[in-house]
Amino acid sequence: MSVTFLSELMSEISQRGRSFLQRNREQPRNPIELCEALVSRRGEVSSFVLSEAVWQSWDRLDRKGQVDFLIEVAQRFGPDENAVLEALAVAQERRDADAYHRLHRATEPRSQELIRRLNMAKQGTLRLVRMREVLTDAIGEHPALAHLDGDFFHLFNSWFNRGFLELRPINWNTPASILEKFIEYEAVHEINGWDDLRSRIEPKDRRLFAFFHPQMGEEPLIFVEVALTSQVPNSIQSLLATDREEIAPEQATTAVFYSISNCQNGLKGISFGNFLIKQVVEQLRNELPNLKNFVTLSPVPGFRRWLDGIRKDEQQTVLAPRDLEALAALDEPDWSAETESVYALNPLLQGVAAHYFLAARDKRNRVIDPVARFHLGNGAKLDNIHTFADLSANGRRNAYGLMVNYRYEMSEIEANHEAYAERGDVVASPSVRSLLKKFQSKTKIAHAS
Amino acid sequence: MSVTFLSELMSEISQRGRSFLQRNREQPRNPIELCEALVSRRGEVSSFVLSEAVWQSWDRLDRKGQVDFLIEVAQRFGPDENAVLEALAVAQERRDADAYHRLHRATEPRSQELIRRLNMAKQGTLRLVRMREVLTDAIGEHPALAHLDGDFFHLFNSWFNRGFLELRPINWNTPASILEKFIEYEAVHEINGWDDLRSRIEPKDRRLFAFFHPQMGEEPLIFVEVALTSQVPNSIQSLLATDREEIAPEQATTAVFYSISNCQNGLKGISFGNFLIKQVVEQLRNELPNLKNFVTLSPVPGFRRWLDGIRKDEQQTVLAPRDLEALAALDEPDWSAETESVYALNPLLQGVAAHYFLAARDKRNRVIDPVARFHLGNGAKLDNIHTFADLSANGRRNAYGLMVNYRYEMSEIEANHEAYAERGDVVASPSVRSLLKKFQSKTKIAHAS
Amino acid sequence: MSVTFLSELMSEISQRGRSFLQRNREQPRNPIELCEALVSRRGEVSSFVLSEAVWQSWDRLDRKGQVDFLIEVAQRFGPDENAVLEALAVAQERRDADAYHRLHRATEPRSQELIRRLNMAKQGTLRLVRMREVLTDAIGEHPALAHLDGDFFHLFNSWFNRGFLELRPINWNTPASILEKFIEYEAVHEINGWDDLRSRIEPKDRRLFAFFHPQMGEEPLIFVEVALTSQVPNSIQSLLATDREEIAPEQATTAVFYSISNCQNGLKGISFGNFLIKQVVEQLRNELPNLKNFVTLSPVPGFRRWLDGIRKDEQQTVLAPRDLEALAALDEPDWSAETESVYALNPLLQGVAAHYFLAARDKRNRVIDPVARFHLGNGAKLDNIHTFADLSANGRRNAYGLMVNYRYEMSEIEANHEAYAERGDVVASPSVRSLLKKFQSKTKIAHAS
Amino acid sequence: MSVTFLSELMSEISQRGRSFLQRNREQPRNPIELCEALVSRRGEVSSFVLSEAVWQSWDRLDRKGQVDFLIEVAQRFGPDENAVLEALAVAQERRDADAYHRLHRATEPRSQELIRRLNMAKQGTLRLVRMREVLTDAIGEHPALAHLDGDFFHLFNSWFNRGFLELRPINWNTPASILEKFIEYEAVHEINGWDDLRSRIEPKDRRLFAFFHPQMGEEPLIFVEVALTSQVPNSIQSLLATDREEIAPEQATTAVFYSISNCQNGLKGISFGNFLIKQVVEQLRNELPNLKNFVTLSPVPGFRRWLDGIRKDEQQTVLAPRDLEALAALDEPDWSAETESVYALNPLLQGVAAHYFLAARDKRNRVIDPVARFHLGNGAKLDNIHTFADLSANGRRNAYGLMVNYRYEMSEIEANHEAYAERGDVVASPSVRSLLKKFQSKTKIAHAS
Repeated sequence: MSVTFLSELMSEISQRGRSFLQRNREQPRNPIELCEALVSRRGEVSSFVLSEAVWQSWDRLDRKGQVDFLIEVAQRFGPDENAVLEALAVAQERRDADAYHRLHRATEPRSQELIRRLNMAKQGTLRLVRMREVLTDAIGEHPALAHLDGDFFHLFNSWFNRGFLELRPINWNTPASILEKFIEYEAVHEINGWDDLRSRIEPKDRRLFAFFHPQMGEEPLIFVEVALTSQVPNSIQSLLATDREEIAPEQATTAVFYSISNCQNGLKGISFGNFLIKQVVEQLRNELPNLKNFVTLSPVPGFRRWLDGIRKDEQQTVLAPRDLEALAALDEPDWSAETESVYALNPLLQGVAAHYFLAARDKRNRVIDPVARFHLGNGAKLDNIHTFADLSANGRRNAYGLMVNYRYEMSEIEANHEAYAERGDVVASPSVRSLLKKFQSKTKIAHAS
Repeated sequence: MSVTFLSELMSEISQRGRSFLQRNREQPRNPIELCEALVSRRGEVSSFVLSEAVWQSWDRLDRKGQVDFLIEVAQRFGPDENAVLEALAVAQERRDADAYHRLHRATEPRSQELIRRLNMAKQGTLRLVRMREVLTDAIGEHPALAHLDGDFFHLFNSWFNRGFLELRPINWNTPASILEKFIEYEAVHEINGWDDLRSRIEPKDRRLFAFFHPQMGEEPLIFVEVALTSQVPNSIQSLLATDREEIAPEQATTAVFYSISNCQNGLKGISFGNFLIKQVVEQLRNELPNLKNFVTLSPVPGFRRWLDGIRKDEQQTVLAPRDLEALAALDEPDWSAETESVYALNPLLQGVAAHYFLAARDKRNRVIDPVARFHLGNGAKLDNIHTFADLSANGRRNAYGLMVNYRYEMSEIEANHEAYAERGDVVASPSVRSLLKKFQSKTKIAHAS
Repeated sequence: MSVTFLSELMSEISQRGRSFLQRNREQPRNPIELCEALVSRRGEVSSFVLSEAVWQSWDRLDRKGQVDFLIEVAQRFGPDENAVLEALAVAQERRDADAYHRLHRATEPRSQELIRRLNMAKQGTLRLVRMREVLTDAIGEHPALAHLDGDFFHLFNSWFNRGFLELRPINWNTPASILEKFIEYEAVHEINGWDDLRSRIEPKDRRLFAFFHPQMGEEPLIFVEVALTSQVPNSIQSLLATDREEIAPEQATTAVFYSISNCQNGLKGISFGNFLIKQVVEQLRNELPNLKNFVTLSPVPGFRRWLDGIRKDEQQTVLAPRDLEALAALDEPDWSAETESVYALNPLLQGVAAHYFLAARDKRNRVIDPVARFHLGNGAKLDNIHTFADLSANGRRNAYGLMVNYRYEMSEIEANHEAYAERGDVVASPSVRSLLKKFQSKTKIAHAS
Repeated sequence: MSVTFLSELMSEISQRGRSFLQRNREQPRNPIELCEALVSRRGEVSSFVLSEAVWQSWDRLDRKGQVDFLIEVAQRFGPDENAVLEALAVAQERRDADAYHRLHRATEPRSQELIRRLNMAKQGTLRLVRMREVLTDAIGEHPALAHLDGDFFHLFNSWFNRGFLELRPINWNTPASILEKFIEYEAVHEINGWDDLRSRIEPKDRRLFAFFHPQMGEEPLIFVEVALTSQVPNSIQSLLATDREEIAPEQATTAVFYSISNCQNGLKGISFGNFLIKQVVEQLRNELPNLKNFVTLSPVPGFRRWLDGIRKDEQQTVLAPRDLEALAALDEPDWSAETESVYALNPLLQGVAAHYFLAARDKRNRVIDPVARFHLGNGAKLDNIHTFADLSANGRRNAYGLMVNYRYEMSEIEANHEAYAERGDVVASPSVRSLLKKFQSKTKIAHAS
């Protein structure tokens, strides 16, 4: 027996030695080799260690190195060519569900499995979102990255499925480490430090809601700021005024969504806003049954560029000559809504804006305004047009001060969405449509005369 | 203006009317129609309402109705045929990454999008897991469901990615509503009510760990029960004895994984056990640096069936005739390990078992024992063979009382896994290999003589 | 300088030496000496260490040793005699607020400071409650402990002030380690294991509320079990029946407090029940505005003893001779409410019971029933008398099956309490008072005849 | 029966009527009457409603009205005079434990019961702390409030017993609503807004710990700021420098308590600091076993006033004439430590400071410095004297820039405390004592010469 035992022991030792050598041999591998190992069969059992190793390599790369790495991944982690060819051959012969299924499996790029396994490391999802941030930045210069970006998008779309999102009210009891992110991420109406933040979340008639994801820790995905008011507001400055009078939430009739910001560039294209607004509407309606109006107070980022284009276009038929002249009052660098000639523009601007939303279209025959496309696509309707409603530098530069309300009426959302998505109709309130009618008939008369 | 306003109002009314009719028309739709609506463009904006409607239809169906529904989904929600044919034509012409990518997208069955959208309802993930439970039950009778099951598997594999799993220690401070699930789901060594449960989680030298998923609420996915001991145990009855002496965790040298149970039939095929064991090893090692041995005390569910096969096989060469006779002692309905003729079988049974693990293979040339395949595939090694180690009815019926230890040695896991996965080698301790040598030489001599 | 430094060093060393010796000298002190040190000036700075040392000594004592220790504390930790005499002398001279204040301070027994400092150890409050349990047990044999018990009571009354209590709903999501305490502490209607417990907290029409204290960890102080029903119940067996039909809480009109149990003997005399019931009434009323009736279904623990006393008393005038005879039907060991002669007792028993509550008094001229005293003192009114309402062994033994409802009507509580506390009036519903009238007139006639 | 029923009904109605009238009659009562009702027997059952009513009256009073109310309480809620006289008479006759106990109970002012019952309202404890803030503010003008303040103190001392305090680490994950309180309450080294706060709690080598009380919600009682460093610091400016190099906590050898602030004026006199420091020491020692030194970097608020007193005192013998002259360099309004004549003062200032701590005493024969009294009373020892260590306006004004380290050596605390508390000895390190020796011998020589 001692002989047997000794020989066993020898074999044991040699086995350990092999494993030791292997491990040593592997240490200095570059990230691409690590990725290959990670998607290999061995990766199954060592995914935790290997994925961590990839991430540490990645962290050591500079921006250029990271882009080069992504390009190499895009090139090397496509589908298995042989498997594709075989599946194609089969599909040629018999065009049935089985064949298609096989084709689908065979054409899955290995990069998808790579991304899934990279997700196994600690904070994998957050790291992947950051990785895609680099990727989407680089895609302009390196179009070859498009398919890899598609893989990220496909998986993120599945992982960030609405079923996995968690809506959290944010308030002054929220940890400071989370609050500071809202200061950082607010993209519509800048938050100037802690006192400004406090003025948006501490008063009882102000709310902030954000979506979080269980795997993204304290990183918000998107958030919306809400004001509870006793009437639909017509200016952002009055809404945010620090000396405004606070009202009791129970007395509010209107919830105004005055700012929606996406937080993660790495989640570009994944749509959260639609769900966020509707879930917040539902939550507020439960808490405050007196709320009747759910409206936005939204910027019109494409308005000025479009209007200026028309003003320069000698062929245009949108504006009557007299109106063209009147609009020159807005060319003053510091025009004021108090100036008579500007104030007098009010009906004209409203009419032009109604035209911009309801009649004008871009080259792809779409509604021109991106914010409009977002809300109309969600099933909201265009409810009101407010001139001189955002007199900040930004508001003047983009929209000559114009803002609008979109209204979310739960019982109409489906019909509105269909009207817009299938027939391209912009559903608008009677008053907005009436603005257009008046504007068009006046212009027609002007052109006719 | 009054004319304009009136006409606007009329149009408004008609618009509302249309929406009302649509909604009424839609109400009594069957679940398949609801699914069609859900994956349609309109589904984007109404996914929450529509997915909820599908689920409510589903809940109203009886088992047969549910299976019929799944079969219809499998038939109707394949890929868009036209898109596939177009993509195929392109791929015929140019076999490049673009073409394959397009092919991959085109061949994705619409059922995948359906499942993703069904996930948007409240408790969507849990409901989908329950739906797949019905599906996998029915698949034997209805093989046409296989591809749909593949879609579930594909998405679950992505959603239940290890990065999304949460390891929770379970103890006597855990809510009763969660604890009762472990009584229900324990599949290896039955838990007889609350006192038995308590004896497995309250003592300081006993632990229970489970994986949870953020979208599955209080439903565990898999759990493992651990005993902290001062030596590697050789019998389950002594391990679970209620009168055993408790030891201080700091004095334990050995963590024994004595029961691993999957909880969700609807997650069949998604592998959690591998990660669970390794994460628990890591956690225990951090908490209790004195732990040196991480071993299982595992059943051998295929042993008796295999051995009985050999005993009936007149052509067999595994057992010497004398040994065949000796084994007859186990045919007594109530054989006892105290009986001399049984007790004397000890070396023989150990040798036969070593053969069963190390030498015998099934028709597909695999290790026969499914539990062995699981642990060897995870990179564990076969460490010890214990006869008369589980004398429960179950233990006798399946394995003539045999149990084994698999050992998880973190530094060897990768090498062990490779040896097994790539070369089919079962890594075993010197003592187990020595058992095989002795058994084989004795048998050879016996056959030779 | 070196000389200076050396001499400093010497002094340093001697200082450390002294401290070392002191510490060594102190180690083996007995608990009384430790207590003396703890209330001394030095105790201020070392209270944490010293109080822990007292507790460890206490834990090592057996029950007799603990009682002896308490007796010694009672003897030695009275007020400082000299300070009392001085303060008395001052008070003799001038009877003013200053003098009284000084007297109050001087007469405070040192045991109060001792208890306060013992509270500084880990889990100090819980340990003190357990200590008082020993004390109250021993007080019968050792009346000298009464003042010390008064000190505990005084401090507990302050520490367990309602402002410090936390009301928690208990349900099936509560940790098992807390739930098991309710099985242990239920004193009115025994809970038979986990399934019985579950039937009392999991159904939507059943609630359990308990008071906790921040310093008592998971130990409940008192709890009440509530059934939500559609009518005022008249029998405990039907209320607890496992096959009863569950109702939706929103449909309930009545909250029945069917069991109230104190959990801590060491808190004897500290009154929580009053606050508990009222806070639960308030909480349920907020959650379920449909609730109209808040009633108990209470035992009548003193009824049988009182009635049997009358039955044996040859001088009694409460019962008519004919009624005395009729009551003999209850002397059958297994009398059944179905037996005609028993069933016929119904009106008589109700009348006798009305007399028991409204007319009979004990030697101290109090309402006889302790449960009645509790609820009437809280401002409840006696609402209903139910015969054959608790046919358990307990219910027969104590009350011939009788139970009653007390009703908590928030708008009447203050007046009810005053009527009872100041004039000794038992506020009862018209129907109960009518029972008494009928019983009395019948009896009068019988005695007259 | 109908007669009976009717008469019952009449009585019922009259009863309700009485209760209604009482309630109406009571409504407009002033706070003192409400307090009387609250401590009366009726108060037992209605304490919740009545205490709330007192608080609402209190909230409506202006500051003067509140002080008047407190004065009236002080006058009217003393002990029951008759009970005191009876108890006195008894005590005259027999001077035993019983008599003293009775005397103690009889002399308890009713204001104590009042405070206990006011504590039953929502947020009662916090409101009482705020009430005492008013009281302590007014006590200078109204010495008659002293006894009432003593009642508050007595009860707070019991309620804020160390056993009830909760130590919480505060960091950047703490809710903003709590963090802002630290900005408000920091009393030693002002926190200038959120960025400054962040620099004190977010870096890994900075900590902040606070005591909370379960009944005080988010209001901290006291907090300490700690810096983890690699050596004992000798200047506050270098410690707080924003450009300092952060170190890993594991590498720190020293925990510096550089700021301790009480937060609640209403808890004046209740001592938390002692426990806070010791508990933080214990917690840090557990977490970071490498920590060897636990020292403060403390201000010396009484130093300059004392030194200036001596400089003006023509009879003084502490300073040699030459030293007196040299100190004139500090009379420059903007003296700088870089100026040669100031820099040269270093040894002199250290010597004078050693004298200030070790030799000088105030009229009550106490150590002069209040911060020194606090730390020495806690058992710390004077470890180091640093000149030019706090060059802020505050540091120059109070201490000519001087700061000191007190050292908490757990094994010496008891001995240090006893030395100080019983013999008045200031325990100091050899180096500090050596400074004194040198200073005294030099001065003696100077005076002698």
